[in-house]
Amino acid sequence: MTTGPEHPARPAVVLLSGGMDSAVAAAIARDAGFSVHALSFRYGQRHAIELAAAARVARALALAQHLIVDVDLAAFGGSALTDAIAVPQDRSADEIGHGVPPTYVPARNTVFLSLALAWSEVLGARDIFIGANAIDYSGYPDCRPEYLAAFERLAQLATVAGAERGERFVIHAPLLRMSKREIVECGTAHGVDFALTRTCYAPDPSGAACGRCDACLLRLRGFAEAGLADPVAYRR
Amino acid sequence: MTTGPEHPARPAVVLLSGGMDSAVAAAIARDAGFSVHALSFRYGQRHAIELAAAARVARALALAQHLIVDVDLAAFGGSALTDAIAVPQDRSADEIGHGVPPTYVPARNTVFLSLALAWSEVLGARDIFIGANAIDYSGYPDCRPEYLAAFERLAQLATVAGAERGERFVIHAPLLRMSKREIVECGTAHGVDFALTRTCYAPDPSGAACGRCDACLLRLRGFAEAGLADPVAYRR
Repeated sequence: MTTGPEHPARPAVVLLSGGMDSAVAAAIARDAGFSVHALSFRYGQRHAIELAAAARVARALALAQHLIVDVDLAAFGGSALTDAIAVPQDRSADEIGHGVPPTYVPARNTVFLSLALAWSEVLGARDIFIGANAIDYSGYPDCRPEYLAAFERLAQLATVAGAERGERFVIHAPLLRMSKREIVECGTAHGVDFALTRTCYAPDPSGAACGRCDACLLRLRGFAEAGLADPVAYRR
Repeated sequence: MTTGPEHPARPAVVLLSGGMDSAVAAAIARDAGFSVHALSFRYGQRHAIELAAAARVARALALAQHLIVDVDLAAFGGSALTDAIAVPQDRSADEIGHGVPPTYVPARNTVFLSLALAWSEVLGARDIFIGANAIDYSGYPDCRPEYLAAFERLAQLATVAGAERGERFVIHAPLLRMSKREIVECGTAHGVDFALTRTCYAPDPSGAACGRCDACLLRLRGFAEAGLADPVAYRR
């Protein structure tokens, strides 16, 4: 894709959490020639340290823009990520892969994609990238291909661009069928500096990862399987 | 529907803006026997006076709960309701009924319904009420029946309740095909005190309605056609 002045890059909105998956999704979008407008949320998460990581990732990837928007999901409660519910630790790969964990935030991807859609309509973007992954997060209903396809259909009907002008929104989930190992390898190939990312659901005040929550365990397994060392600090 | 202790009322989430349409939707939900959890948003609207109106309506209808949640749609810009774009005045009924007005907030109903869905999942509610109206707001793509049906399908796939347990979410839009006159009459029949509601897109600091924006003009026409006086104060 040409991105010279005669062919300015098309804008895309990329959901950027500060974790490794969305960093890889952002790098893929950038390397596909999009002008990347990264979107993060201050949603009442206990691990707000991820917002600083998102800003670092956006700078390192030289993204066009990074916006942090407030949306108070904690007002509803019901999740270990926003509420006084314990984050599970030391679960086996089988436990992590099955059932809905308490770290599920009700309808989170629907809320985040809706906000990405709102910004896309203002920017004139038709492409939204999300780092959703159906393999490692099979317990999250809103990481499944049929869910993302339904959101694409909704976007068509929800917007002036789609409903009035017949333009199509595309929800890109380039990591959807990748293993964590493949995500590590893909990110490395796209120049992602994983040292900047933060994955842990329950980091300590210094920012060190716990190494025991589902997110840490999946991340560590991915690096191990890729034969690489995870560059972030762990408490143990 | 029985609402005694042996048959506690089923919860429903109702989007409550402080305007007349959502007040009528809330009264319909309550009178259908639901325990109504009303949801309003501080989204950066210029007419934030509507939040005080929503609180008054929730109290007057003796709703089970009223929650105001922050979601910063103004961060995206692009609408006369959140931005420094002029609210149109003195448009004819034909102008109001056609095309997308500058007061359209991109993807607003998608964002609001997503947040209602998140709260529903936490509450164990399967019913969401929205005061969307397809007649007077034909310019808003996200007030159309096909849009609401698409959101219902998405809700099924987006949630643990829908995806794992096969439960159905229902988006109720009881005002969808009503004229403003019918909404006035229906609200009156359900005991809505319209004096508590606020509709104007551009009220003055005292809270008086402008009487000239699309929302005021539609409201005034509804009362006139119903042969009733609108009890709220107008600047002119």
